Amino acid sequence: MRKAMLLRSFDAEWGKNRLEALSDGVFAIAMTVLIFNFKLPEDLKRTATANEVWNALGNLIPEFVGYILSFVILGAMWLGHHNVFHALRRTDRATIWLNIMYLAWVSMMPFTTSVYSAHMRTTPGVFVYSANVFLAGVSIMILWYKVRAKPDMLVESLTPQQKHSIGTRIWVMPLIALAGMAGSVIQPEFGMTAMSLIPIAYAAVSRVQARRAAKLAPPDEAA
Amino acid sequence: MRKAMLLRSFDAEWGKNRLEALSDGVFAIAMTVLIFNFKLPEDLKRTATANEVWNALGNLIPEFVGYILSFVILGAMWLGHHNVFHALRRTDRATIWLNIMYLAWVSMMPFTTSVYSAHMRTTPGVFVYSANVFLAGVSIMILWYKVRAKPDMLVESLTPQQKHSIGTRIWVMPLIALAGMAGSVIQPEFGMTAMSLIPIAYAAVSRVQARRAAKLAPPDEAA
Amino acid sequence: MRKAMLLRSFDAEWGKNRLEALSDGVFAIAMTVLIFNFKLPEDLKRTATANEVWNALGNLIPEFVGYILSFVILGAMWLGHHNVFHALRRTDRATIWLNIMYLAWVSMMPFTTSVYSAHMRTTPGVFVYSANVFLAGVSIMILWYKVRAKPDMLVESLTPQQKHSIGTRIWVMPLIALAGMAGSVIQPEFGMTAMSLIPIAYAAVSRVQARRAAKLAPPDEAA
Amino acid sequence: MRKAMLLRSFDAEWGKNRLEALSDGVFAIAMTVLIFNFKLPEDLKRTATANEVWNALGNLIPEFVGYILSFVILGAMWLGHHNVFHALRRTDRATIWLNIMYLAWVSMMPFTTSVYSAHMRTTPGVFVYSANVFLAGVSIMILWYKVRAKPDMLVESLTPQQKHSIGTRIWVMPLIALAGMAGSVIQPEFGMTAMSLIPIAYAAVSRVQARRAAKLAPPDEAA
Repeated sequence: MRKAMLLRSFDAEWGKNRLEALSDGVFAIAMTVLIFNFKLPEDLKRTATANEVWNALGNLIPEFVGYILSFVILGAMWLGHHNVFHALRRTDRATIWLNIMYLAWVSMMPFTTSVYSAHMRTTPGVFVYSANVFLAGVSIMILWYKVRAKPDMLVESLTPQQKHSIGTRIWVMPLIALAGMAGSVIQPEFGMTAMSLIPIAYAAVSRVQARRAAKLAPPDEAA
Repeated sequence: MRKAMLLRSFDAEWGKNRLEALSDGVFAIAMTVLIFNFKLPEDLKRTATANEVWNALGNLIPEFVGYILSFVILGAMWLGHHNVFHALRRTDRATIWLNIMYLAWVSMMPFTTSVYSAHMRTTPGVFVYSANVFLAGVSIMILWYKVRAKPDMLVESLTPQQKHSIGTRIWVMPLIALAGMAGSVIQPEFGMTAMSLIPIAYAAVSRVQARRAAKLAPPDEAA
Repeated sequence: MRKAMLLRSFDAEWGKNRLEALSDGVFAIAMTVLIFNFKLPEDLKRTATANEVWNALGNLIPEFVGYILSFVILGAMWLGHHNVFHALRRTDRATIWLNIMYLAWVSMMPFTTSVYSAHMRTTPGVFVYSANVFLAGVSIMILWYKVRAKPDMLVESLTPQQKHSIGTRIWVMPLIALAGMAGSVIQPEFGMTAMSLIPIAYAAVSRVQARRAAKLAPPDEAA
Repeated sequence: MRKAMLLRSFDAEWGKNRLEALSDGVFAIAMTVLIFNFKLPEDLKRTATANEVWNALGNLIPEFVGYILSFVILGAMWLGHHNVFHALRRTDRATIWLNIMYLAWVSMMPFTTSVYSAHMRTTPGVFVYSANVFLAGVSIMILWYKVRAKPDMLVESLTPQQKHSIGTRIWVMPLIALAGMAGSVIQPEFGMTAMSLIPIAYAAVSRVQARRAAKLAPPDEAA
């Protein structure tokens, strides 16, 4: 223990506040710039008729689908990051770097979303999007297993149940994204379907975990 | 009560700080990128005369109108979010997801503002803008009614008056935006007028609420 | 006093943290998107020679001038905002709205900077830029005089000297910007010169204030 | 000491929270807008075949290289800033201005990254990028030496070892960037190689510092 402290002693003791602030900033921006994929065609004049404007808006439906899907996926990523960091007591150099790599994938989402929206009927459109989600998911997973291996990095109040909950949830996104990558190679629609399952899968996991927790509650407290 | 705690026990206990940070980030970005709708025409050369530059700037007046209106509406949304979260003691998974959906509508505002600015004389230009404000307003309203139903989610110091104030204000924006949507179908100008009333309506509500509070004050304290 | 509390009672008691967070976000974004005014010409191919790239970069010198000037002005604005909010004990609805209006001018800076960079040899190029700085400066000044009039909004530890320092500094930017607007009408270069004086003027004020403070120090402590 | 306090007395006492928030915001945005350098060609239609989309994505490999490199460099800058500010007890006007100048270079990175990605085979492409990193590195170095000279600005718990660690690390980036600038003049590839060494150099410094700290640990604690 004392050696660990000495090893760490050449660094200032790091809290997690600023890393959370940086991450929240990157998530907020990645979410907000998704909207930049919405553009009315440049040849749509100000004097355009109502019908022309409706048509131009209608052509953005694939962008809207991508926007909502990516917002939900980024939301799920943010929630996962929130969960992991809630369990952390402090950060170290390795955690910070893994987190930065994770953010590099997060902030790539607006680009891959635009590829997905414009080319969701082709393998590359779906593959690149799924691969991006997969790489982000794997990065945070590595981060989690790294910190889980060092008990002094976790808050003391963390219950085994909470640890288990994080450990389960962290597998959902990369696994489905891997299915999305594989599916997109066979048929783009397979990949698309897989990716759309991410929100549903998280809702299902939440329900199962809530039910399991409810079973542990004494019967007279039910309802 | 104990059951609720067990049900919650698979999650780390969530504060509201990071959700507020994420939301503030999205609001700040949505407000700031509104300016991207201002663009001088690409064929305006650096050697343009003063008159040509004045003309180009003059053509941006509709963008300026949309910019100020959206800044005020986003300001009112942010203030409403601030109010609701000020009343919250903690967040849970449902609140977080409702908040993320809310942010999806907030961050769509720069796009619908650009549609509004360029096509405010057509039904779709006003309708899409009003619909965006409406959907954002409805999302935060659902969030509020959800948390209001769980007394343990609210801070104890919240007075019935404050609760009532939030509950009144939260209806103003979606109702007017609904009028904006309906109005835009009949005549775009009707919708535009409705939307311009949002800041005025909030000012009026504030005044009424302040007056009512003043009446409750003993007369010897007046002035 | 009791009446003021009752008048306020329909609002949750507002801190200043979230308003500061929103403002810091808007400042950070306004500063960062200034860079979007830097663009290599679209017809510059990847196979361009070193000379062609150097030329393209050289053509961006006006953008660089505008970038540095606006970064410094935004920095001075942020510092002013920091000072004012440091003196605040709490916020109210009026302060929040004045602050939002202030942010609307702050976030317009990247656009007016682009106009300034491209057309600094014309009246409108300099006028629009100066007007933007002027309106931002006036907004924060109104905010300051509003809160100064309500002693319970200021922190108790605020010394008269600090109050005086804020009150002096808050006049510098709008006055010079007004000179910039007037100058630009006569001759664009006059306006440009005025605007470039903003950083110098603040440095001078700081020096004078520091000297005055030093005079008050007992001689045996000098050096 | 008393004079220093008087000299400072015309300013409100400044914490470092808001300056950190502003800096985190600028870093988060600079990191996220790096992605704007990724663009599919405008003539790539929605009906493009899978092969056409793969080709378009393949053409972005130089952008990807620049993206990852800049993300890592910005990460190292952020970590350096984090370290320096962790050692600070308070800020003053000079620190704030040096920090703002530093941010001006940080937020220029997305532009110079785009120049680097598109023209990394020419001297200006590599030179401009290296110069940007160099100027950022020098700015934070000046900031560090300024605050190091005023012991009352540093936290009391700062050990000489930590001070030494920051002082060593702060030299790595500007020195390598200087080599990148020099190298790019001789041969662009030399500059590119130098810049790619930045992450490796930091990893090496960390390893050396960790080893030295380990040597100081008593042998019975090793392993």
